[in-house]
Amino acid sequence: MKYSNKKLSIENIKVQSIAKKFGTPAYCYSYNQLKENINNFKRSFKSFSPLICFAIKSNTNVNLISEIRKLGLGADVVSMGELMKALKAGIKPNKIVFSGVGKTVEEIKYAINKKILLINAESKSEIFEIERIAKINKKSVNVGVRLNPNVDAKTLSQISTGKKENKFGVSEKDFLELVKYINKSKFVNLKCLSVHIGSQILDVKPYENMLKALDKIIKKTNHSFEYIDLGGGMGIDYRNNKKVLNLKKYSLSIKKFLKNNNSKIIFEPGRSIVGNTGILVSKVTYIKEGHKKNFIILDVAMNDLMRPALYNSIHRILPATKSRKISNKTYEFVGPICESTDKFLTIKNFQKLDEKDLIVICDVGAYGISLSSNYNVRPKPIEILIKNSKINVINKRQKLVDLI
Amino acid sequence: MKYSNKKLSIENIKVQSIAKKFGTPAYCYSYNQLKENINNFKRSFKSFSPLICFAIKSNTNVNLISEIRKLGLGADVVSMGELMKALKAGIKPNKIVFSGVGKTVEEIKYAINKKILLINAESKSEIFEIERIAKINKKSVNVGVRLNPNVDAKTLSQISTGKKENKFGVSEKDFLELVKYINKSKFVNLKCLSVHIGSQILDVKPYENMLKALDKIIKKTNHSFEYIDLGGGMGIDYRNNKKVLNLKKYSLSIKKFLKNNNSKIIFEPGRSIVGNTGILVSKVTYIKEGHKKNFIILDVAMNDLMRPALYNSIHRILPATKSRKISNKTYEFVGPICESTDKFLTIKNFQKLDEKDLIVICDVGAYGISLSSNYNVRPKPIEILIKNSKINVINKRQKLVDLI
Repeated sequence: MKYSNKKLSIENIKVQSIAKKFGTPAYCYSYNQLKENINNFKRSFKSFSPLICFAIKSNTNVNLISEIRKLGLGADVVSMGELMKALKAGIKPNKIVFSGVGKTVEEIKYAINKKILLINAESKSEIFEIERIAKINKKSVNVGVRLNPNVDAKTLSQISTGKKENKFGVSEKDFLELVKYINKSKFVNLKCLSVHIGSQILDVKPYENMLKALDKIIKKTNHSFEYIDLGGGMGIDYRNNKKVLNLKKYSLSIKKFLKNNNSKIIFEPGRSIVGNTGILVSKVTYIKEGHKKNFIILDVAMNDLMRPALYNSIHRILPATKSRKISNKTYEFVGPICESTDKFLTIKNFQKLDEKDLIVICDVGAYGISLSSNYNVRPKPIEILIKNSKINVINKRQKLVDLI
Repeated sequence: MKYSNKKLSIENIKVQSIAKKFGTPAYCYSYNQLKENINNFKRSFKSFSPLICFAIKSNTNVNLISEIRKLGLGADVVSMGELMKALKAGIKPNKIVFSGVGKTVEEIKYAINKKILLINAESKSEIFEIERIAKINKKSVNVGVRLNPNVDAKTLSQISTGKKENKFGVSEKDFLELVKYINKSKFVNLKCLSVHIGSQILDVKPYENMLKALDKIIKKTNHSFEYIDLGGGMGIDYRNNKKVLNLKKYSLSIKKFLKNNNSKIIFEPGRSIVGNTGILVSKVTYIKEGHKKNFIILDVAMNDLMRPALYNSIHRILPATKSRKISNKTYEFVGPICESTDKFLTIKNFQKLDEKDLIVICDVGAYGISLSSNYNVRPKPIEILIKNSKINVINKRQKLVDLI
């Protein structure tokens, strides 16, 4: 995404021409950026060739998942629906892991039938349930157990998952008991130790602490794990202050860890694969002048992009066409929904905007469309993938009549 | 909703039998409660017979809206989709008002064509846009203008809407200018002054301050408003601590206000009409024992009910079947989604629960299903209306295949 001749473009396609042809709001993804992210991820960890399972929850567009599959990734799913999407996108079952604290009987049965690589269980009860179902079906099921390493990811409380007070994984004590239990079972095979300490992590330190905790506990189990699933959580630079997670440094720590542990590493990245591939194009419906600030009322709303309302997340906003006139008012970018929560960003010194101008909200590829809803009976935006400078509609704009 | 013979029931229908027949999670609404709420609302304000426009955004189920219409209410809509839903539910256009800060050209055209009672504009730009469209169509359009009275509703910051720093309505200065402007226009008629200071208000005082502010400004305009739209915002008792808004007291303040102002009052209640009519029935998938607390992992998640994740809202949780055994552990009720945000409530001294037990989440009639999404590719719950002790499926459970 860059400005050429003052017009914001994705791979030579002007945002302006997308809006003209397909209307707004519109999600647009860049294939080049996707490819770059995946290649960068692979390159960073190439010394131990991990299995990279894309976290489907971050973006559930089947066409996009299909492109991710072609670039060599598997899938991390957290529900039967996500598993169905991954399979529909052509991902092979032996590259799919199933995570999540509340898998239902129906979901476990489906996953067993599809012969996916691993069901990563998160509680004793779930292991008992998997064993019960496997026994009835006379099958032997490969499982992982998610350990809660009690490591603070130093991230937002809403997206921290590896501390004792979180619902995720099992404690060290329970983990050790489960290893013993599963090793005696005829119906479940313990193939994997899994862990995931949180989201939007930009510092290697929490990961290093996690690896130390894993090393200790693996020694205590005296079990040889075929897979170590380190989860995801790699953060991206939403503020454009160039702060990025040092993947190479993380890679070195893992290499060191693997000297003692001869396992295949699994990763479950979502945000770091798709986050910065997407923008949300929107039109200014009205500008409302206030004393100290102007409200820029957009045609995109919190139902289309929940992250600012749900997590107070910052997403940069850029004009579709650059100009040199700067407004002396503070701009508050808001949506049309009747809630104060429906607010995107407050910016000083933005360029002067007029009604009908186009803007883009940045870095919405992850947890954008997947968290969207029809609140206020608003149809979901169109989704477009720009690939080789060609526009591909990968999900049509929802029709209002289909919502009534 | 009450316990009879230890079983939680809505109008003699046991929650247990609903779950058995229709599965979980399931939204269930009580017609009796809906009728009681509407009759209570009408009774409280009967001395001046207001037009009560149900705020569709709080619950967009067409069958439920149809019942609300039969009980005499009109509709407050905030989008073209909501307007279509209101019309589909049989609400007459002359009982529909259109609110919202970001009405698009398409929405304004549609509303004008349908000849609804009022378009309540929220900015100068919107008035100009309505006038422009009316002129092209050679029509004269009835409008209201929403005033931002700069009154603090003393409620949650996310749902406060009547302060200067909010995006809603226009300032006193702009309001006075707009009155003059519209009075000279051939294409827009100023019929209404509208106002809405926030949500979940439980004290009459903010409303009294609002009425005082209105009284002053109306005098300044020297305009006779056919309608005064006071919005909604009447809170309900989510915590069951019996704190309720004194509607009678509010009614007396309005009567006093009407001595100086000979207008028809419009209300836009949502939560106070449907909030306490609905429960969400859920099954315990797993119980995960911790040191100090147990995680009760439900089959309902934040995608089904966003309010706790989005606003930190409290919704009481009750067991479907009462027992006398109390757990000595704190219970944390969570959903299956891989986010710490997916958490409903933490309770001490709850009755001892087992896996597969049923619980209900209370007071989910407003902003429950309407804010729900398909996050994690989870299908939306079934919606059931209990009327005259009969079960009516008013929206089928979404099918997973329709999401893939």
